[in-house]
Order: sequence, then C-alpha cells, then structure tokens
Amino acid sequence: MIRVAICAPSASLPRELAAEVQHVAASFGDVELTFHDQCFIEQGHFAGSDQQRLDALVECANDANYDAVWFARGGYGSNRIAQDAIARMGPVAQGKIWLGSSDGGYLLGALYKAGIGRSVHAPMPLDIRRDHGADAIGTVLSWLSGDTGQLEPHLDGRPTAAFNLMTLAMLSGTTLMPDLSGHVVMVEEVSEYLYAVDRLFFHVTANLPPSVLGIRLGRVSDIPENDRDFGMTAEEIARHWCDRSGIPFLGTADIGHDAANRIVPFGVTDRNASLGLAGFTLGKPRSWQ
Amino acid sequence: MIRVAICAPSASLPRELAAEVQHVAASFGDVELTFHDQCFIEQGHFAGSDQQRLDALVECANDANYDAVWFARGGYGSNRIAQDAIARMGPVAQGKIWLGSSDGGYLLGALYKAGIGRSVHAPMPLDIRRDHGADAIGTVLSWLSGDTGQLEPHLDGRPTAAFNLMTLAMLSGTTLMPDLSGHVVMVEEVSEYLYAVDRLFFHVTANLPPSVLGIRLGRVSDIPENDRDFGMTAEEIARHWCDRSGIPFLGTADIGHDAANRIVPFGVTDRNASLGLAGFTLGKPRSWQ
Repeated sequence: MIRVAICAPSASLPRELAAEVQHVAASFGDVELTFHDQCFIEQGHFAGSDQQRLDALVECANDANYDAVWFARGGYGSNRIAQDAIARMGPVAQGKIWLGSSDGGYLLGALYKAGIGRSVHAPMPLDIRRDHGADAIGTVLSWLSGDTGQLEPHLDGRPTAAFNLMTLAMLSGTTLMPDLSGHVVMVEEVSEYLYAVDRLFFHVTANLPPSVLGIRLGRVSDIPENDRDFGMTAEEIARHWCDRSGIPFLGTADIGHDAANRIVPFGVTDRNASLGLAGFTLGKPRSWQ
Repeated sequence: MIRVAICAPSASLPRELAAEVQHVAASFGDVELTFHDQCFIEQGHFAGSDQQRLDALVECANDANYDAVWFARGGYGSNRIAQDAIARMGPVAQGKIWLGSSDGGYLLGALYKAGIGRSVHAPMPLDIRRDHGADAIGTVLSWLSGDTGQLEPHLDGRPTAAFNLMTLAMLSGTTLMPDLSGHVVMVEEVSEYLYAVDRLFFHVTANLPPSVLGIRLGRVSDIPENDRDFGMTAEEIARHWCDRSGIPFLGTADIGHDAANRIVPFGVTDRNASLGLAGFTLGKPRSWQ
C-alpha cells in the first residue's frame, strides 16, 4: 500500500473534485489518497495564506504515515513558500516522492536541489477536470502501483528534469534552482502567446548551464490568438534558441497541460526498477538506506 | 540641431503615425527626426526579419549623420538581434544616445553593458497613439532640446537604470544583462496579471546583485481582470519581495506605459548638465573625448 498525502502549495482545489479523484483511486487497491483540508481553503489567488500553505506542506512532508506528497494543482504560489518549506523538512521527508507539475515545478526543483526525496513531474488531482481526466489520475496511480509503462517514453537512463517553461524561467538564478548540468531538460507550456514562448526560450537557453545535455519540447497548448501571426511554430522557436545557444535540441517530450501528461522522475530513471526509481526506497529517509 | 534616426528593432510602426510624430516635431526647431523605412515593414510579429531589423539598427548606429537612435516602439523582438547588433557597432555608435523603453530595454541594457553611447529610458514614437500622446513625444523632443525638467523627478545623482519588469526578468542571466550593482533600479509593467507581477518580482529580486541600491516602482497599468482577486496591490508585491530579498524599496518612479512616462538616462544623471548627461558629448565617440 502506498499512502499519498495531497496538499495545495499554490491555488485551491474545488472540494467536489476530491471526491472524483477518490472515485478513480478506488479502483487502484494499492494506493490510498488523503486530501489535507488545506486543499480547499481559498484566500485571494491562493489556497490559504503563505503560512497556511507552508504549514500544510511541511506537515505532509514530515508525516511518517505518508510515502508520497501530491500537489493538488498549480495556479501560482508555491515559489512563495518553497524556501521556507525546505528549511523545515525533517528526516522523514527524505524518503518521500513529490508529485506535481506546472507551478509545482518550483517545489520539484527546490527539493531536487536540496536532495530531499524524489521529485517527479506528474499530472495532478485538478487534472480530473480535463477531457479524459480520469486517465491523468490513472497515470499517477498506476505508476505508484508499479506500472513503469506510465513513464515518459524518451527517458533513456540519462539524468532528466521536466518543467513548465515559465516555471523554469522564473526559477533560473534563484536559490531554488537545481544544477541541471548533465541533464536532459523537458519543457512544456500552456496559454502563452508564441512571442512569450520565444522570450522564455531566449531566457532559459541563456540560463541553463553549458553542459546541459539538451532540451526536449513537450506540448505547447491553448496558445491565445494574437492580433498577428508569430511566424514560427513552438518547435521552430525551440530549435532557434537551441541553435543560438549551442544546446542540442533532442525532439519532443510526452508532457503537457493535458490528460496525456506522462511521468518524469527527476534524475536517472531505471525502467527495470520499481517505479523506475532505482536505489530509492519509499518512506525510508535516505540516511537509512 | 539634434538629428535623430528612428528604426524598429521589435515590431512595426503604422506609417500614418510617423507623420503625426513629425507634426509634433515641427514645433521643436532643434530636433530633426528621420524614420528609417524599416520601421514600416511587417513580417509576422516583427518589423521585418531578424536580419532586416538588425541591419537597420546597425545602419542607424554607425551613421555619423545622426546623434541619437530612437526605437519606434516595443512589442517584442529586440532581444533576438541585440547581441549581433552590439558586435557590429563601430566608433560612431559610441557617441550616440539610445532612446526607448518596454521591449527596447533589451537594447538599452545591452548597450549599457557594452559601454556604447548613452542608454535612455524614454517614450517612443508609437506613444503618439495614446491619450495625450503628443505629450509623450514632446517629453523626448523637449529633453533633447535641453529641457532637463523632463527627467524622472527621483533621479538623485546615484547610478540608475529603468526597465519594463518583464524585460528585466528576461534579461537576467543572459549575455545582454548589465551589472546593476550600486544602481537604483526602476521598473514598470503593463497588461500583466498581478500573479505574474508577483512571479516576476520573485525572479528579479533573486537575480539582482546584492549590492543593488534599491527598487523604485513605476506604474503597473492595464492589469487584466482575473477570475479571482490577487489579494495584494502591485506596491505590496514589490515591498514583499524587496523585504524577502533584502533590497531596499525606495518608493515610486514616474515611468510607465503611458503618456506621462519620464526620461531616465542610464547611469548617473547631472541635472545641471545638458540633457542631464554630464561628460557625454553628442555625436562624439567616447574615444574622442
């Protein structure tokens, strides 16, 4: 049995969606989901004040009853609490899997930098709302149940990290930013104009370390219609800035703001190991291994 | 007589606006404006291809017939050509004033970093389209005619730079980014959600050098309505991230995407010197001084 705590470090989750997610989880006997009440708090843009979101995250992280912490959704805000959260994480947090994407990437990146547990780019509970949303939930639960077929298909044994493009751009240069030297970096984006995608690639390719292994492009979806055509596709943009910066463009990645978003454990993935996480034992602080 | 070349390193200027700007200029006998034909080219998002925009900018920069180069408008794109433009600038460019703002900040920043001429945050020809747009044009022409009353009122003799917030965020960590140690940094923003403003302040305050003298907040205008209230004003956001990062918050700045946008020469401004530019001689390469 894998026990998963769900909290909301960014925006609030509509309460009725928790029941829908639990309904999907009922068919996965090996996984038990617990929604922290903080998920349902609404305060302005956020799922509660910085302090409330921080406290809930730290509580889940340091609770030995849970093997994994799943971020309920993105929406902006986890960057406001990430540094303080890291500082308050105890030994129990070392054995945890962290699941999320989009705005949750601030935490995945910061935890990866700090070497705490295992950061995993994955769909989130809010994705139940999408077309075929149950599939997105099923991707995570099935992977947690041991199905390595849910892993992103291009993972090739080299260190990898996956981010929303805006999140990676904003992480760059901050104290939360992990060292991505020697990594394949996968990026995806949603609801941004193509000129903004171009601007983000300018920034990200200039800020990644020179020894980065390359960039893979996930889906760039729901692009708003502009008053004029940008003149390049998202892939042409990615190729342009990879060429300019000398970073290899490696092709596509099967990630995005959609129900088909696949699992990307940060670091090295071993497809023959449980969850693809070679050398990582659920619920065991690293110091115990 | 101050001779000003106008080109468009980002997006295209509607041709009819050039005539309106010339009409305003006619009442400033000391200033002569020349619009480069490249201003009116449209190609996708941009005022021509990267090559066309680069060539026009370099042509204006290296032409001894002009004392200043004015960017016709923002709109995105000058970051795509800034590095190549700097590499092609000859001795004549050293004596030039560069005028612009918004997306033009990539060039102002890169030229300031390279020590080429004098970068000046200022209204642009497209501003003629605004309410009281002639005032915005008049601000620049009056300043070029010697009226130091057009200078941003908080300039206090300490090194200063002014940027659109998004532009500064995207510049950070790139080869175009000037060293803002020991500078007052003024920022303004337009048409961004407050959560995006918060995200940009997170990024910018983490990336400015620790010895930055402080941040001044210009106007944050045309904020789109979101599905929920952010819960903080732009000034509260600025104060929050200044507090977190230890950067002094210095108050407001009289800049913004509006007709009242004031003049901010990069570096030290001397209110008693012509144009406020002590030690800078128009049209003279620095090596001649």
